[in-house]
Amino acid sequence: MQASMYEFLIPSANRMLGNLSQLLDKADEFATAKKIEPPVLLGSRLAPDMFPLTRQVQIACDMVKGAAARLSGSEIPSFADTETSIAELKARIAKTLDFVNGIDAAKFAASEDRDIVITLRTGELRFKGLNYLRDFALPNVYFHVAAAYLILRHNGAEIGKNDFIGK
Amino acid sequence: MQASMYEFLIPSANRMLGNLSQLLDKADEFATAKKIEPPVLLGSRLAPDMFPLTRQVQIACDMVKGAAARLSGSEIPSFADTETSIAELKARIAKTLDFVNGIDAAKFAASEDRDIVITLRTGELRFKGLNYLRDFALPNVYFHVAAAYLILRHNGAEIGKNDFIGK
Repeated sequence: MQASMYEFLIPSANRMLGNLSQLLDKADEFATAKKIEPPVLLGSRLAPDMFPLTRQVQIACDMVKGAAARLSGSEIPSFADTETSIAELKARIAKTLDFVNGIDAAKFAASEDRDIVITLRTGELRFKGLNYLRDFALPNVYFHVAAAYLILRHNGAEIGKNDFIGK
Repeated sequence: MQASMYEFLIPSANRMLGNLSQLLDKADEFATAKKIEPPVLLGSRLAPDMFPLTRQVQIACDMVKGAAARLSGSEIPSFADTETSIAELKARIAKTLDFVNGIDAAKFAASEDRDIVITLRTGELRFKGLNYLRDFALPNVYFHVAAAYLILRHNGAEIGKNDFIGK
């Protein structure tokens, strides 16, 4: 067993997006049991100027596919942000994991030192690969999965921290 | 630059607990500006059966010191959970970082394969070092710092995701 860029990214991505997919199943069961209209939870947010649940899931996926593509030298697949149901969000997660799990592990070799440039509305961020993964991509994945979890928890869904951390 | 257990733990711990300490400063300024009694934010939670802000900060610190101690073969320092103010919580964060930054980086060598046993109320968790860091310690650190951030965000503090991710 060896710490590596691949080991810190790909198993973490599978675990966190897998947990997120299961959280969405629990949200679905909760909404059905409580007769909550399907769009209500997906549009819920923790502050009026924060993103709602749907966008948290989309961004978590985008952070994972962006990291896997940039660190392996692959093209980043583009997903339209059109999901309007739990089933569609779960499909986006599955599509994201299919993409990252289809990349040959060898392509991540020496990605610690890869030059990474992220273009944001506010300008460019430049990183070495290790800094990008550790200080930007993984914290963002955890942030958006935690935000999704906490939106559901705040709304009363019957979930606990193990649903976030995973087994 | 090389991916290693040390590189994934210690810089991440400094970044996330450093950001958490600055979030507490912003919480303090916000409470003062809005004339919010000091204990109100510290006792806030996102669901009635979730931990409040104070406990989120304590656990984030405990996850960091536990991980640094276990992976380096050091004794885990014990901190009493007695903080009742932002200043005391910031002191706990500082004490945690003093501890982890005082450990020789060489002690983390080969910690990927170290046997780690965590005793919980619910039983024992057994890991190899890499799994412990990647699948338990780091996700817990991110979870509790995100929960602290989102409690403050939900209460109207003027913070944004960059305060969580850091510069």
